[in-house]
Amino acid sequence: MSHSPMSMASPTAPAVYTWEATNDAVAAKYGVPVDQILRFDLNTSPAPPDLVARVLAANRFETSLSEYPPSDYARLSEAAAEVYGVRRSEVLVGAGADEILDMIAKAFLAPGLSAAVAVPTYSMYRVVSEQRGARVIPVPRLGVDQDYAIDVDATRTAAREAALVWLCNPNNPTGRSERPGTIVRLLTALAADAVEEGRRPPAVAIDEAYAEFTGESAIPLLGTYPDLVVIRTASKAYALAGLRVGFALARRETLEKIEPYRPPGSVSTVSVTVVTAALRDRGALEANIERVESERVRLTAMLGEIGWDVHPSVTNFLLVGFGDPARAERVADGLLHRGLVPRTFPMGHPLNAFLRFTVRAPHENDRLIAAAREIATEESAA
Amino acid sequence: MSHSPMSMASPTAPAVYTWEATNDAVAAKYGVPVDQILRFDLNTSPAPPDLVARVLAANRFETSLSEYPPSDYARLSEAAAEVYGVRRSEVLVGAGADEILDMIAKAFLAPGLSAAVAVPTYSMYRVVSEQRGARVIPVPRLGVDQDYAIDVDATRTAAREAALVWLCNPNNPTGRSERPGTIVRLLTALAADAVEEGRRPPAVAIDEAYAEFTGESAIPLLGTYPDLVVIRTASKAYALAGLRVGFALARRETLEKIEPYRPPGSVSTVSVTVVTAALRDRGALEANIERVESERVRLTAMLGEIGWDVHPSVTNFLLVGFGDPARAERVADGLLHRGLVPRTFPMGHPLNAFLRFTVRAPHENDRLIAAAREIATEESAA
Repeated sequence: MSHSPMSMASPTAPAVYTWEATNDAVAAKYGVPVDQILRFDLNTSPAPPDLVARVLAANRFETSLSEYPPSDYARLSEAAAEVYGVRRSEVLVGAGADEILDMIAKAFLAPGLSAAVAVPTYSMYRVVSEQRGARVIPVPRLGVDQDYAIDVDATRTAAREAALVWLCNPNNPTGRSERPGTIVRLLTALAADAVEEGRRPPAVAIDEAYAEFTGESAIPLLGTYPDLVVIRTASKAYALAGLRVGFALARRETLEKIEPYRPPGSVSTVSVTVVTAALRDRGALEANIERVESERVRLTAMLGEIGWDVHPSVTNFLLVGFGDPARAERVADGLLHRGLVPRTFPMGHPLNAFLRFTVRAPHENDRLIAAAREIATEESAA
Repeated sequence: MSHSPMSMASPTAPAVYTWEATNDAVAAKYGVPVDQILRFDLNTSPAPPDLVARVLAANRFETSLSEYPPSDYARLSEAAAEVYGVRRSEVLVGAGADEILDMIAKAFLAPGLSAAVAVPTYSMYRVVSEQRGARVIPVPRLGVDQDYAIDVDATRTAAREAALVWLCNPNNPTGRSERPGTIVRLLTALAADAVEEGRRPPAVAIDEAYAEFTGESAIPLLGTYPDLVVIRTASKAYALAGLRVGFALARRETLEKIEPYRPPGSVSTVSVTVVTAALRDRGALEANIERVESERVRLTAMLGEIGWDVHPSVTNFLLVGFGDPARAERVADGLLHRGLVPRTFPMGHPLNAFLRFTVRAPHENDRLIAAAREIATEESAA
């Protein structure tokens, strides 16, 4: 869903996803009416596209809701193939990108195998890898001065002992894209290293949950690397996180390794029908992307004026530095008491002096700006 | 979803679920208009409850569809707890019972461990167990003269080396319930054997997908056996297979072993809202159960008159014997050419001289009866 801390109960138990507090839980804890809660922590969109109401009211779905969804998701896969520029046979549908991640882990990992992860990043790559019994090799990204880019050399070294490499581009929670050519350079190097050592190169999974905000993608590279999987979602730019639909895009030979792990039908027929329509509604997508772009500029400027250190972003969220973890925690607390939920990073996380904020609708962002101003005034008075 | 053959591509690869042919595929293969296709193979219901249209038209969900579903599914869990007579903390929600099965396999199995399965039964127990890297110990059920009941002694023997025992009651595809006392007798024996051997008893998962049709359940036994998990679903008696919602019910200590494997949110917000309402609509549930009961009696009688060997059933499906696999295949072919899809069993399956039929709506069952009559006439003329 979005970046989150992981709990590590014991050195041998796999990492576990820590669920976000619900609106109800935040409301109760901070004494705020539940309808005043605004989520800036989940990288979602303020409203679903208008077509949703029309499709639901029509109550006409591909199959009756008393029957199982179509086992091949044919029309949804066809629509996704058109949007992503691949063949229908190169699309795999899952119950959100998270189920896609789980299927990839099942297909390419096992106890005794390793997965390299460019960190900090979305926590689920580690969770699904460790839950599969595999070992995770964290590969630290380059520093802020290098835009938190993938460390190609270090990834290459880690990949020598990895069956799978997890990448996220643009990366969550750092909000930036790799520089042009980095992904292709990394893939070429991984393939060359494997040839040299007489082994098969590791599978590479690139999570492009935020790719619509940049227009860049590794999809054109699918033909050039043996087991490359690109992950896309309806949850971010398409503004349909509540429907739980994600996609794996890969060459047929690669999908044939993943498909045996696809459950018989985990995606609701309602989701299938609505997302099929949403993929074809370019106007709604473009309007959402435009909102993000203009509000990202405005929010960056306004929060910057208040003295917040807003990092550059190509996505629908902003990473903001507060210098030290204690101040980040104080600001988070001030926001939560106003019903605004930031993404926090736990103790020990390299970004624990930061908070992350979703770029929401103008009037919602206004609430964040006003709260930031109040908190800054309180800080300077203290 | 329902009983299905498994493919076994290699002796070492895990079993894989074989997806049902879609309506489109059946229509194309047998030259039948797609709107004439009727699925008698999926144990679903002819129509969803009326409340679905109302909930969808209102377009008001717990959270906006642009946001993620509530991470604790609190209202859905609360409704399920009331219906099943457990605490809310004893309910785990999944994207259909199939995701629940996968979570149970992840929690209790690993490479080197074994799972006992009372067969023939729903194929997914084997699939999720083998995909987890565990070994499956099939335990044949007793014969037709003993209602395909669980072989308690053989299960007890297999369970000595199993970390998990999979049961289905009423069983799919045999359509019958265990006799009163069998489940409690088995659980007591498994616990006693473990005490005697100084080990922890295996976890036991009882899939009660069809339990609403009998009113019997192992839920009252949750307190009496260490790791007992009861699986329920919205797909069968609640007539909402297209929404993909299933439940695990277990004591808190047991759920705490499974919950770490729950994905952050795999169930659509639409499904959450609709199923919450459906669980509270006892009238719709009871009407569906009554339809099944009366149509099961009628279908059994009518098909019996035609000379089909219809086995007794307590569920929404009928197992019909045809004496030999070749005749079962001929009948299936005759039905498919009329757009009626039976469940077939593959070569080598102990029930491959049988077909299985969902009890559908009266006018739909009439089509099956008419087709059976025509096929019988053709057979006697041949």
